Amino acid sequence: MAMTLNLSQTAQAVASGQRSAAEVLQDCIARIESTDARINAFTGTRFEAARAQAARVDAQRARGEPLGPLAGVPFAVKNLFDIAGEVTLAGSKVNRTNPPATADAVLVQRLQDSGAVLVGSLNMDEYAYGFTTENTHYGPTHNPHRPGHVAGGSSGGSGAAVAAGQVPLTLGSDTNGSIRVPSSFCGVWGLKPTFGRLSRRGTYPFVASIDHLGPFADDVDGLALAYDAMQGPDPLDPGCFATSAQPVRGLLGLGVQGLRVGRLGGYFDEHAGAAAREAAALAAASLGASATVEWPDAAQARAAAFITSASEGGALHLQRLRTQAGDFEPLSVDRFISGALQPAAWYVRAQRFRRAYRDKVNALFRDWDVLIAPATPVAAPAIGTEWIDINGQRFPCRPSIGLLTQPISFAGCPVVAAPLWPEAATGLPIGVQLIAAPWREDLALRAGWALARNGVAKVREATL
Amino acid sequence: MAMTLNLSQTAQAVASGQRSAAEVLQDCIARIESTDARINAFTGTRFEAARAQAARVDAQRARGEPLGPLAGVPFAVKNLFDIAGEVTLAGSKVNRTNPPATADAVLVQRLQDSGAVLVGSLNMDEYAYGFTTENTHYGPTHNPHRPGHVAGGSSGGSGAAVAAGQVPLTLGSDTNGSIRVPSSFCGVWGLKPTFGRLSRRGTYPFVASIDHLGPFADDVDGLALAYDAMQGPDPLDPGCFATSAQPVRGLLGLGVQGLRVGRLGGYFDEHAGAAAREAAALAAASLGASATVEWPDAAQARAAAFITSASEGGALHLQRLRTQAGDFEPLSVDRFISGALQPAAWYVRAQRFRRAYRDKVNALFRDWDVLIAPATPVAAPAIGTEWIDINGQRFPCRPSIGLLTQPISFAGCPVVAAPLWPEAATGLPIGVQLIAAPWREDLALRAGWALARNGVAKVREATL
Repeated sequence: MAMTLNLSQTAQAVASGQRSAAEVLQDCIARIESTDARINAFTGTRFEAARAQAARVDAQRARGEPLGPLAGVPFAVKNLFDIAGEVTLAGSKVNRTNPPATADAVLVQRLQDSGAVLVGSLNMDEYAYGFTTENTHYGPTHNPHRPGHVAGGSSGGSGAAVAAGQVPLTLGSDTNGSIRVPSSFCGVWGLKPTFGRLSRRGTYPFVASIDHLGPFADDVDGLALAYDAMQGPDPLDPGCFATSAQPVRGLLGLGVQGLRVGRLGGYFDEHAGAAAREAAALAAASLGASATVEWPDAAQARAAAFITSASEGGALHLQRLRTQAGDFEPLSVDRFISGALQPAAWYVRAQRFRRAYRDKVNALFRDWDVLIAPATPVAAPAIGTEWIDINGQRFPCRPSIGLLTQPISFAGCPVVAAPLWPEAATGLPIGVQLIAAPWREDLALRAGWALARNGVAKVREATL
Repeated sequence: MAMTLNLSQTAQAVASGQRSAAEVLQDCIARIESTDARINAFTGTRFEAARAQAARVDAQRARGEPLGPLAGVPFAVKNLFDIAGEVTLAGSKVNRTNPPATADAVLVQRLQDSGAVLVGSLNMDEYAYGFTTENTHYGPTHNPHRPGHVAGGSSGGSGAAVAAGQVPLTLGSDTNGSIRVPSSFCGVWGLKPTFGRLSRRGTYPFVASIDHLGPFADDVDGLALAYDAMQGPDPLDPGCFATSAQPVRGLLGLGVQGLRVGRLGGYFDEHAGAAAREAAALAAASLGASATVEWPDAAQARAAAFITSASEGGALHLQRLRTQAGDFEPLSVDRFISGALQPAAWYVRAQRFRRAYRDKVNALFRDWDVLIAPATPVAAPAIGTEWIDINGQRFPCRPSIGLLTQPISFAGCPVVAAPLWPEAATGLPIGVQLIAAPWREDLALRAGWALARNGVAKVREATL
């Protein structure tokens, strides 16, 4: 049986007593058990612990105690988040022999503190280095809207679990597109916050200078609800720059009223196929964005993001690559090795470029509040696809999936990925990026809310 | 005729009308002309422009206008500082064909705004990559206290010009020791301020993430006077983190009263020869520092500083190395090339180490206000020396001169280099580093003032 309530409706139903946390959880477990053999979103479940957590929520309610804003909402996390007592795989075979985590990741803890119920951990590209979740060791995650096609990556399990109706809320990470790409391919909402906004403590890193964490949800209101529950400073994470929580959920209803919304042209049109351009045009029309805006230095930013990712990722894994390269993912091990060996001059130059680039991007937001661009050049390709066509040009499939996301994350801007269903995608979704200035998640979420209200962006139930 | 007044006395003499700026300048020019053939501190002079500047000071005085705090004080700068209308050599032959600078460097301008009189530019290791100023293209700078021995580097001209009594004030730069080493070898005062304290706008860079600028002087009061004149924010320099000027000169007389002063042991004893240890012991005794303190991870910090310097320096010069490597300094060109080709993983690891290292160093200053260490392992070696002995161990001379300075600058701490004259150095000076927590130049300068008052640190006139 499909879950018929979305994230915010589920929270509301438990809060009002219409449904118990135990009932919600039981439906969720049933859905996982009936669908995951075909989807392969989960790499681990903890249903007993989840039942105990749900029972605590129901007991709180029975005693008349106040409930957290996510009370009874089931969720799952990309398997690079620490869960106390479990080994943090980060998609790898190599990590299997690591000791279990001694504490939950900060964001996992914050969701649980808000009453959410953790049901398991989710598949990903090994060490987050991929855009497809074709994981050789744990198997590929399948797209719920067309099994046999990829779910996107690296947070593929996180996108697919929401799209399959298994859980209404998941967490993922995004360095070069790893939240926005699975959101796009699976047709769910995703939020990549500002670089430094959410604590990364208790997660397995990939590229410390670009890694972001964020939520996936099956409605935009729920996305904001979950984001608000995770906000706030973390003095113990030197990479968390937030000094206070800035709740956004109450602002969504403002929509795009008074906002200057533009659509990115140039590079972002040239590297988007027909369906992706259709999706961006639909969003632009819905939000009254008539102007085309030029994003600065997008191609150079993507190159610098590649160099930075390979160098930092390679440095992180260098010791393990020396002794057990054969245990790494065949699809990415060569990139890790070559990344570690890249000339330092390339990395230094990428860093220098990045400082000037951020200044240019920040300057752009003096004139604009929200900018629209497709999230992926194409809809989800079939598993195993090596080459794709974009406007008559042939591109290597896996790296090119990030063409439109990499330049944005390298600048650190917050992005909401909204699920659209253009006709040219023939039944598959394509996401649209709603991009705002650093620290202005509120504006990106308001634009997402407007797209949802206009019926342009929505999550569709997958037939499974 | 030697200049008989030091920096602060000169400023006082001009302020009181006891001497005119023109007279002071004339003595200075005469001293340069009578000594620089033997010292080779200057690579360029601008005596006519200096005479005009001195005349303006004297005219101001004649009109009864207020004078700046450095009115009439002659100074010169390492030739990596821009001087409007002159080509900024940065010690290289390669730069000779560059267009002339269109404006003075910010610090040059600030000194001139305070009334100081710019007389010329000074020799250095090419592109600041060396500790000896054995410059193949412009010739070595000779140590005024023992010509035939090095002056130290890379700001060798800046140290030698003050030691030779040519000018009471010079500017230099310090990445791994390039102010503290010439201070030590030449027996003059030097200040390497906190990383990010002084504007670097208008200077030729070496390692953007470690470069510092600072003054040399022939008395500690004058050092503070010049430093105060250069302080303040610079919104146009993204590497200048100072938000306000924090004048220190008025605080010097507090000395070390109430300060917790320690002496660095371990690594800093093991890599200091007898004369250097004697110098540190003399300073410690004078300042009542009985405790020995362990600086964290000094050897690793030096390694990380080497890797960072080679990578950033190599990246900076990569294009020129490809086309005209033969025009580079033979003593450093191989290091630049290999630096550009170092694996990026090394650089990334050095950066990651640096963050943790800074935290450890900052923690040390919860317990200590000022820490004492020698500035160099030995006194100035003869020009051309390839190997030195430190406590019975053989070390390559040129890189090992920075053994004691590199770990400190890599943490960004401010350091005053104070000139001491231990018996074991047989007539040559050795500097002592007075190290304080970031942004506490005041404490390091107070310790320097106390050493001067006790007669332990002093500038001696060179017999030339």
